[in-house]
Amino acid sequence: MQASETSMTDASPRGSASRLEKWLIPLIFRATGPVPVRIALGDGPGVAAPGIAPRFTVRVRDLRTLAQIALDPEVGFGDAWMSGRVELAGDLVAFLEAVYHAGGNSDRGWYSRLASAWMDFWQANTLSGSRHNIHSHYDVGNDFYRIWLDRQFVYTCAYFPSPSATLEDAQTAKLDYVCRKLRLVPGETVIEAGCGWGALALHMAKHYGVRVAAFNISREQIRLARERARAEGLADRVQFIEDDYRNASGRFDAFASIGMLEHVGRANYSEFGRVIHRLIGDRGRGLLHFIGKNEAGTFSRWIRKRIFPGVYAPSLSEALEVLEPMGFFVEDVENLRPHYARTLEHWLERFDKSSAAVTAMFDPPFERAWRLYLAGSIAGFRAGPLQLYQILFRGSQFAALPWTRAGLYEAGNAE
Amino acid sequence: MQASETSMTDASPRGSASRLEKWLIPLIFRATGPVPVRIALGDGPGVAAPGIAPRFTVRVRDLRTLAQIALDPEVGFGDAWMSGRVELAGDLVAFLEAVYHAGGNSDRGWYSRLASAWMDFWQANTLSGSRHNIHSHYDVGNDFYRIWLDRQFVYTCAYFPSPSATLEDAQTAKLDYVCRKLRLVPGETVIEAGCGWGALALHMAKHYGVRVAAFNISREQIRLARERARAEGLADRVQFIEDDYRNASGRFDAFASIGMLEHVGRANYSEFGRVIHRLIGDRGRGLLHFIGKNEAGTFSRWIRKRIFPGVYAPSLSEALEVLEPMGFFVEDVENLRPHYARTLEHWLERFDKSSAAVTAMFDPPFERAWRLYLAGSIAGFRAGPLQLYQILFRGSQFAALPWTRAGLYEAGNAE
Repeated sequence: MQASETSMTDASPRGSASRLEKWLIPLIFRATGPVPVRIALGDGPGVAAPGIAPRFTVRVRDLRTLAQIALDPEVGFGDAWMSGRVELAGDLVAFLEAVYHAGGNSDRGWYSRLASAWMDFWQANTLSGSRHNIHSHYDVGNDFYRIWLDRQFVYTCAYFPSPSATLEDAQTAKLDYVCRKLRLVPGETVIEAGCGWGALALHMAKHYGVRVAAFNISREQIRLARERARAEGLADRVQFIEDDYRNASGRFDAFASIGMLEHVGRANYSEFGRVIHRLIGDRGRGLLHFIGKNEAGTFSRWIRKRIFPGVYAPSLSEALEVLEPMGFFVEDVENLRPHYARTLEHWLERFDKSSAAVTAMFDPPFERAWRLYLAGSIAGFRAGPLQLYQILFRGSQFAALPWTRAGLYEAGNAE
Repeated sequence: MQASETSMTDASPRGSASRLEKWLIPLIFRATGPVPVRIALGDGPGVAAPGIAPRFTVRVRDLRTLAQIALDPEVGFGDAWMSGRVELAGDLVAFLEAVYHAGGNSDRGWYSRLASAWMDFWQANTLSGSRHNIHSHYDVGNDFYRIWLDRQFVYTCAYFPSPSATLEDAQTAKLDYVCRKLRLVPGETVIEAGCGWGALALHMAKHYGVRVAAFNISREQIRLARERARAEGLADRVQFIEDDYRNASGRFDAFASIGMLEHVGRANYSEFGRVIHRLIGDRGRGLLHFIGKNEAGTFSRWIRKRIFPGVYAPSLSEALEVLEPMGFFVEDVENLRPHYARTLEHWLERFDKSSAAVTAMFDPPFERAWRLYLAGSIAGFRAGPLQLYQILFRGSQFAALPWTRAGLYEAGNAE
């Protein structure tokens, strides 16, 4: 049952807002800052944030839901949205952007901090914890991801040579950009930590003549990746290993990890650095591509609760805790923030077109939760603290460095 | 009197090393690691590092000097070199590179740490401390810098479009590269913190049509910079201000600081960030260009004692302490390490060609100290921990971002 189909008659009547509304709704605005929204209980007139003309209306189905949102705005709203107990008049992405623009800091209250610490504990990325966390997101089913990802199943930020590039082209351009940053040479060996459905490993082997060992603990992803390697005749050059990156061994020329640092957990950064150094030593080089933030802070608790258990988006200086203790040299950091907003716009558009199929495959709360997650991520990359960093680094003895970055952008290089 | 012209007869005779030598010299190797060098007292046979064939010989003039080097290898050697109490058979840069390759960590002993902390204290970059520190280096005399810098007096890492570019061209290319990264637009305003002899501010005004307020506390540099602004007819668009960057006020479109973060002092990073934010807010952007290290650690105490009081080269994560607390977005980090080695090679070559003039202008210890500093810096950028970072950052509301970095490298852009 979706909230938009519900007649909201079980709350206060139209007219003046009840005393409870007048008490609870300002509590929400105290946390969120001046969002241009009117919040109403049922069909009531609601309360708007002071000092700003409302551009949106949020109708909350019942008092209990309103109280939950007042206690914990982010998780309360997310869960209410997911279960259809709120409805929004206005565009969801634009509304979430407005929330970011209001600049509240609801994650700094005592309740949020306590809940966040507790979440860190029970979602810890130990070997078994990671397996559980990853399974719950990436093993939802390949057919689901097929609906809204590109043909190659690349579930990370694309690289748009121009904003009008198609998603398919932009994902291929990203794979190639990573290979060029790493300056892969035929015959070299690459280790990939967290390989998704295998697109990068296959691209590297096919277009750069390298051998790749690609790790992933998502069974569904590995299964499809292996099928693709066989179908493309690359099974002898790309090994997809269903195991934790921490169990990798051997010595490689290059390391790559695209969209996995988010799942490592900050407590494990120094171990991650030691693993990378064990695998490439001082003569190798590597690339980390990950969602980060402009300043350190907790990650959305609703996303952690409903979408990505164990996820954390570090600030750039936090991410350097992986590399600096091992003496790696940081060669190049690029922030692809607008590219992720664009990527997510493509995903949401495809998702929305197939929302009936998603609902049929799962249920309405699942469809609503994922729509909120995709829309919220667009807002986070447009107006919030989310950044997409690519860090290229090398061991102190890696010698084959380009003199400048110009070669990355020479005609013929961009695909 | 130079060590190389001295007959070293006041120490132990040729033949077997004395018991004191056999005790003191291994202490040095314990700190430096296996450097391929034979260290000898006077004309004695000396002692080589165990397990590595010596490629260099260092002759130490007297026992007291040897003891000083054993107690504190870096400062002891530097001061002995400066005063001509050691001589080296072999190339100075190659020798210092070999010291880096040996991988010792003489700065982690109790003596070094204590001395380093003491140095931090008495060289602190307070308003008056900075004035003293900067005066002692940059006000040595413009005629001195004229000898070995490029025509424009750019005393920071150049950008070599190719390794064979001339120093003059590479410095111009660097100035232009900074302007292009900042995407300066005619009519905008720029604040520069630490402007040297004014080359960047003048380049910005002349080629990008912006107005610049450029701060510097070096009297000699400001004097020459103002002369140049008048001579080039740019005095109405570039204001050279003899004052501390911390006293700057007003609101600007862009911030630039080239080779000054090294003089800010780590204790002042958060204040530096607040100053930058006060000057450009959330709608501006900026560029920090500075010498850093791949991991946090103390900076050469000899350099701090004799060349650059108050200097500190941060790791990248330390430098981000300036930007992250203010919510700035890091857009692009580029490591120009090989470019600084190349720049320094040009400087040392010019310096060496004019060493007689330098000695005549000052005295032999000055000439020897500066040669060691330049040679040691080459070694540090070739084989040591030194890095040259350019960080491009922006406020959260700066909108005029390019979609990719490709435009930086388009034909016609490079000078």
